[in-house]
Amino acid sequence: MAKLIYILNGPNLNLLGQREPGIYGTDTLETIEQKCRDRASALGIEIQFRQTNIEGVLVDWIHEAGAAKAGIVINPGAYGHTSIAMHDAIKGVGAPVVEVHLSNIHAREPFRHKSMIAPAAVGMICGFGPHGYELAIEALAARL
Amino acid sequence: MAKLIYILNGPNLNLLGQREPGIYGTDTLETIEQKCRDRASALGIEIQFRQTNIEGVLVDWIHEAGAAKAGIVINPGAYGHTSIAMHDAIKGVGAPVVEVHLSNIHAREPFRHKSMIAPAAVGMICGFGPHGYELAIEALAARL
Amino acid sequence: MAKLIYILNGPNLNLLGQREPGIYGTDTLETIEQKCRDRASALGIEIQFRQTNIEGVLVDWIHEAGAAKAGIVINPGAYGHTSIAMHDAIKGVGAPVVEVHLSNIHAREPFRHKSMIAPAAVGMICGFGPHGYELAIEALAARL
Amino acid sequence: MAKLIYILNGPNLNLLGQREPGIYGTDTLETIEQKCRDRASALGIEIQFRQTNIEGVLVDWIHEAGAAKAGIVINPGAYGHTSIAMHDAIKGVGAPVVEVHLSNIHAREPFRHKSMIAPAAVGMICGFGPHGYELAIEALAARL
Amino acid sequence: MAKLIYILNGPNLNLLGQREPGIYGTDTLETIEQKCRDRASALGIEIQFRQTNIEGVLVDWIHEAGAAKAGIVINPGAYGHTSIAMHDAIKGVGAPVVEVHLSNIHAREPFRHKSMIAPAAVGMICGFGPHGYELAIEALAARL
Amino acid sequence: MAKLIYILNGPNLNLLGQREPGIYGTDTLETIEQKCRDRASALGIEIQFRQTNIEGVLVDWIHEAGAAKAGIVINPGAYGHTSIAMHDAIKGVGAPVVEVHLSNIHAREPFRHKSMIAPAAVGMICGFGPHGYELAIEALAARL
Amino acid sequence: MAKLIYILNGPNLNLLGQREPGIYGTDTLETIEQKCRDRASALGIEIQFRQTNIEGVLVDWIHEAGAAKAGIVINPGAYGHTSIAMHDAIKGVGAPVVEVHLSNIHAREPFRHKSMIAPAAVGMICGFGPHGYELAIEALAARL
Amino acid sequence: MAKLIYILNGPNLNLLGQREPGIYGTDTLETIEQKCRDRASALGIEIQFRQTNIEGVLVDWIHEAGAAKAGIVINPGAYGHTSIAMHDAIKGVGAPVVEVHLSNIHAREPFRHKSMIAPAAVGMICGFGPHGYELAIEALAARL
Amino acid sequence: MAKLIYILNGPNLNLLGQREPGIYGTDTLETIEQKCRDRASALGIEIQFRQTNIEGVLVDWIHEAGAAKAGIVINPGAYGHTSIAMHDAIKGVGAPVVEVHLSNIHAREPFRHKSMIAPAAVGMICGFGPHGYELAIEALAARL
Amino acid sequence: MAKLIYILNGPNLNLLGQREPGIYGTDTLETIEQKCRDRASALGIEIQFRQTNIEGVLVDWIHEAGAAKAGIVINPGAYGHTSIAMHDAIKGVGAPVVEVHLSNIHAREPFRHKSMIAPAAVGMICGFGPHGYELAIEALAARL
Amino acid sequence: MAKLIYILNGPNLNLLGQREPGIYGTDTLETIEQKCRDRASALGIEIQFRQTNIEGVLVDWIHEAGAAKAGIVINPGAYGHTSIAMHDAIKGVGAPVVEVHLSNIHAREPFRHKSMIAPAAVGMICGFGPHGYELAIEALAARL
Amino acid sequence: MAKLIYILNGPNLNLLGQREPGIYGTDTLETIEQKCRDRASALGIEIQFRQTNIEGVLVDWIHEAGAAKAGIVINPGAYGHTSIAMHDAIKGVGAPVVEVHLSNIHAREPFRHKSMIAPAAVGMICGFGPHGYELAIEALAARL
Repeated sequence: MAKLIYILNGPNLNLLGQREPGIYGTDTLETIEQKCRDRASALGIEIQFRQTNIEGVLVDWIHEAGAAKAGIVINPGAYGHTSIAMHDAIKGVGAPVVEVHLSNIHAREPFRHKSMIAPAAVGMICGFGPHGYELAIEALAARL
Repeated sequence: MAKLIYILNGPNLNLLGQREPGIYGTDTLETIEQKCRDRASALGIEIQFRQTNIEGVLVDWIHEAGAAKAGIVINPGAYGHTSIAMHDAIKGVGAPVVEVHLSNIHAREPFRHKSMIAPAAVGMICGFGPHGYELAIEALAARL
Repeated sequence: MAKLIYILNGPNLNLLGQREPGIYGTDTLETIEQKCRDRASALGIEIQFRQTNIEGVLVDWIHEAGAAKAGIVINPGAYGHTSIAMHDAIKGVGAPVVEVHLSNIHAREPFRHKSMIAPAAVGMICGFGPHGYELAIEALAARL
Repeated sequence: MAKLIYILNGPNLNLLGQREPGIYGTDTLETIEQKCRDRASALGIEIQFRQTNIEGVLVDWIHEAGAAKAGIVINPGAYGHTSIAMHDAIKGVGAPVVEVHLSNIHAREPFRHKSMIAPAAVGMICGFGPHGYELAIEALAARL
Repeated sequence: MAKLIYILNGPNLNLLGQREPGIYGTDTLETIEQKCRDRASALGIEIQFRQTNIEGVLVDWIHEAGAAKAGIVINPGAYGHTSIAMHDAIKGVGAPVVEVHLSNIHAREPFRHKSMIAPAAVGMICGFGPHGYELAIEALAARL
Repeated sequence: MAKLIYILNGPNLNLLGQREPGIYGTDTLETIEQKCRDRASALGIEIQFRQTNIEGVLVDWIHEAGAAKAGIVINPGAYGHTSIAMHDAIKGVGAPVVEVHLSNIHAREPFRHKSMIAPAAVGMICGFGPHGYELAIEALAARL
Repeated sequence: MAKLIYILNGPNLNLLGQREPGIYGTDTLETIEQKCRDRASALGIEIQFRQTNIEGVLVDWIHEAGAAKAGIVINPGAYGHTSIAMHDAIKGVGAPVVEVHLSNIHAREPFRHKSMIAPAAVGMICGFGPHGYELAIEALAARL
Repeated sequence: MAKLIYILNGPNLNLLGQREPGIYGTDTLETIEQKCRDRASALGIEIQFRQTNIEGVLVDWIHEAGAAKAGIVINPGAYGHTSIAMHDAIKGVGAPVVEVHLSNIHAREPFRHKSMIAPAAVGMICGFGPHGYELAIEALAARL
Repeated sequence: MAKLIYILNGPNLNLLGQREPGIYGTDTLETIEQKCRDRASALGIEIQFRQTNIEGVLVDWIHEAGAAKAGIVINPGAYGHTSIAMHDAIKGVGAPVVEVHLSNIHAREPFRHKSMIAPAAVGMICGFGPHGYELAIEALAARL
Repeated sequence: MAKLIYILNGPNLNLLGQREPGIYGTDTLETIEQKCRDRASALGIEIQFRQTNIEGVLVDWIHEAGAAKAGIVINPGAYGHTSIAMHDAIKGVGAPVVEVHLSNIHAREPFRHKSMIAPAAVGMICGFGPHGYELAIEALAARL
Repeated sequence: MAKLIYILNGPNLNLLGQREPGIYGTDTLETIEQKCRDRASALGIEIQFRQTNIEGVLVDWIHEAGAAKAGIVINPGAYGHTSIAMHDAIKGVGAPVVEVHLSNIHAREPFRHKSMIAPAAVGMICGFGPHGYELAIEALAARL
Repeated sequence: MAKLIYILNGPNLNLLGQREPGIYGTDTLETIEQKCRDRASALGIEIQFRQTNIEGVLVDWIHEAGAAKAGIVINPGAYGHTSIAMHDAIKGVGAPVVEVHLSNIHAREPFRHKSMIAPAAVGMICGFGPHGYELAIEALAARL
């Protein structure tokens, strides 16, 4: 059975390409999805790629990924800084999770320095734009 | 007219039985629902038992319970530590509310020590696992 | 083409008229909508007036308003004190936004003193009840 | 051998019935003792019911309860917010302990929100007046 | 008797037009006074318009306005972030007060986020430049 | 019936005269008692003058004074900075209380700046050495 | 040469009698002045009694009192909680100072709990209304 | 005259041997007393060895030791982290004091990192179990 | 046209020579003025030398200096630690400002460590007594 | 000219393989160096691989890398949480830097959550053990 | 094989005898070394006694001691309050470590109250001057 | 014997001229050294001018300067914000020290606002670029 990775995107990532390009770059989410598909495909991994603006739906999808025995790459967007619910979901399903951020959250406002996701994750990658998703897939693939 | 209690469950409680059993025990949410139905039935109380991972849906249900003149037992899960919206919903509908947590939140990470729900509730019960729901029903029944 | 303003209302504002009238007054949300329609109409502005209890839906609507090149008057309710997601959504779409609160948030509990919306908005108006919506429309109209 | 529960009451609880009845109700400590005796008796449990205003005497009694292999229901009153000594006593004797407060401590002054007892206890029940003692006995009985 | 509003301006507002125009705009205080006179006149309200750099003089003028049974629109400038004396003056005279700031104080340095005036006022309007004075007059007029 | 004042002294006040005379002066507690008796006698007031090093005994005595319908002058010593139990005792008995400290607690270490007693008391007098007791008796006498 | 005491009153004390009588009582500042004159006269002390709303004028008067070798009773009002300038003035002139507050500042908002004056003063008296001025005069007289 | 050392033990130390042996070891307090007697005897020092769970009794004993011109080795247990009263007692009697803890308080919960005793003591020894008492006696003996 | 520097002195600096000479030295403000005149004269600079105890007057003078296109050497005294108004005045007039303190503010109480002036100034010089004024004039002269 | 990357390792990384293998794994630094050489070689990049326990030497090497126009992968170890000097060095040389940590610093003690390096770097990768170095090289290669 | 203890001294300890003798005493580091050699010799222990002002060299020496299977007595001087690198070194080598300070760090400035070394050490001894080194050797010897 | 001043430069100052010229200017450290030599020479003072990136070497040099009875001008760079070791070194040698910073540290990131050096120094000069070194030499010369 092919390995499976859920790539979950949180709030405002559907705006990519138009949202503050100085910070987030000009790639759209579709471009990122394609890059992920290419990298995953090269590694023999199947992916589910999704986006939502609702915190609870991210929780639902983490549960779904856990039930599917999949790994998870998650860009939690703004919810990553505060969501205990996602933290608990990750611990609850026990799936390996890699957190990714397009921008370098440590170089921005203080309220973005903290992650509630990372303590429940395998690790975090931030600051490399869309490339970070590819690195996350590679990092996760090595663990599946 | 029979007394009515809404028993509302927040994020990740649908995982019960599989989620960190060392902390949350091996009962599923269905088992807890059955225990609640038994206890409520013995007290002549009707119950609505629900779960969602979305904060705003919990707010909706608190409104619904308020409109139904029901009491509320709520296990807000992770949202209980941060949700001003639920705090306001409870104050807004004026229903008697009992907050319940399966685990002893005071014995866990600091970010779980604080409740935004409790200041708007009648009281809180935590640390007794599924039994806490039954105690909450009894405590609420005495007020309805 | 007529100017367009989205008037977005967050959690518990559907309870208006029944929720803590000592703080929020006795007007319902429908009354406020009507006042907004009257004021906007007098200024030759079209409005979209909406309410939801779900944070992520507010994010969706901010995106929608941005795509429609509309201005936004937002009463974010409780989410306004914590929502980085809405903050990011406003910055992401680049629409002019006016934050409004019915009550004087600075005269209430400390957790209501801080706004995550205001730093991304043009300005804030609070403490004037439903009248604040009208002032917000006027303030925004002068910028459209 | 009958099961045994120590019900320990801390400072100012001897004033009950006359002390701030708006917060603590009109029951005296004697009434509460009687309710406890009735509930315990129905559960086949023997109780020791005591009150003191001295922190160190509460520590002594926790030791005594531990030596008697009893469970403990404790209303630590004001000492519950600061007493590391009682925290250590509970951990030291290893007895199951339920903390109870008449009022909802989370809805009062900030210095009452924190409990030094709860992290060493099985769980906490607060906000239900004298009824809370009965719930605590039931919760503890299920563990003895 | 015509309604009366004192419009009080705190430190550095006499510099308007030359002071950091990127933040405060190019209008002078005289222009703002004229806009206020026009708006007030349209609402049948008389105004007293003043500026001082001395905190204690602002306190004096609040007293004077209170004695005249007037409403107050106050742009407290920098003193608004720290002045307990003005807070007390407003509470002491019992006059309705609207706080106004030209810039959006929530989008600037953290020491400007807090207002000592707002908790004693009816409400606050900030971020709309000179237009904010007009909105404040309208908001106050509705209460006189 | 003669008016009655309990003058309660907390920990280490029995050391007076020998304890850090640079801070606390050279009067012994007996000298202070005599000054209190003289002042009280001149005002037609009977006094109970006591000292203990045990927090719980101070709580007991506050209860006793309350039952005797007496006023209370209390020098809580070090317990005054932390004792929620004494705070509750004073609120519980409803007696008028004046807190007194020999030294000026505001001019010493930060942990002495805060009083848990004062918020439950009529007022506080500190920094005047034994004379402060006399002022406290006069202040309290005016209220009995 | 007769002893001299400056009795200095800070912001808003000119409002006494009309300002929040529930907190500050119904006596006017003139009444208090008369009480001070009577008490001082009985003690053979001359007084200067003044009020201003300007912090810097209070600094001026402290200097004047120091130059006159007088003692100082000061009710610094709101400036007492923040004024390093008055703190320095008191230390600079070396005059004995007693701080007095009409209300019990420890029982009010947290920003009133701290005094910048007290660490530079002999002592503080608060909570006894106008009577506190008389106690302060007595306390100071004993030191002159 | 033989040198004298009071060895004072605070709350829960009577539980030694049974209390959390992973932290506190398996020696009982009697064993420790014996080790102390042996070490002191070898150094020609007489000891008083005591234990109490009551903070105020520790204060009493510090006074007694001071009056006896003795040195003090104190294991204040939990009270050491908060007791201003013991801090004052030590400063008041002026006796040389060595604080000792069985466990390494710096390697445990944050609320155990701070000592209120140490700033008034000669020094502190922690982490060496019962051996720490012997080291404390040696350290103190060198000063008597 | 000769270069011009305003040398502005804040609260209590008129006391120099008599105020805490251990900290501030024995020079009077007149002596300092003379030293400044000598140094400025040697550099071909004209000076305005002033002192006031009123924060708002310092704001006025900063405005005046700005209008005169002068540089400013300011010893803000105690107001320097808290005055947002002076901070804004400096930014508003855009004049080059050097902050000077006689004492080393970093070696004194924590509330003197922070400057609200420095972030708006070119630089700060502290700890060199009256000599610091001369260094400030030299530093400023190099920029005019 | 071949691209060049400095791979700099901070304190205690020379212990790898023997130091807390539960946290840091069993690979030695030599193994990691070999993995880096292989990855870099595959990307046509030359590397300098170094380790030191001295903060200032890391600063020296950052300067050297900057002078060589190289990119930098840095595992700053413990100094990463506090070193302003390295932060400044990175900003000073303007080289692209990727911070890497073997362990997931966000899942460990709070003092490891903060990085002083990351705000000056392109991005951070943590939690993937030695694999993280390879990801960092790939991420950096894409920027050279 | 003889037991071995490394005695490591951090910054400024080479100044002993001349550095603030009121705090650190008049013994030089050579005297302390001799006392250590005598005590160790009496216990059949060999010692390495060293001093450096460089944090990273202390890290090197901890590694060296670990490799030599030695115990460590460390007076980390100022680095002890902040050095995560030494904390990690101690954990990394797994050697038993005793921290020693000449002065009572708890009785000095707040920034000296915290130790980053102690949580990784067996225990800490402070306040006994050079004698503390001897106590530390005895304490460590009992564990080797 | 000629007076001697050590001019010590900390981390990254060797980068001057190339490092963030917007903040630090375009002068190199050699230029600054030359300016210092010129100024010192004019004042009849000999100088030692050094730079290092290692904190411990700065400590060594402070010791050396102390032994040479020299004064010290120190630009501690980034270490100035955190180095207790340098603070202690300065206090230990008792040499007069002037701290200098090229940039105005109070106008930059909060972590640069605090100096650990200044409390042990005579004074601080910041914000005047290389000129600050000359002012520091003059200030120090006046004290030698």
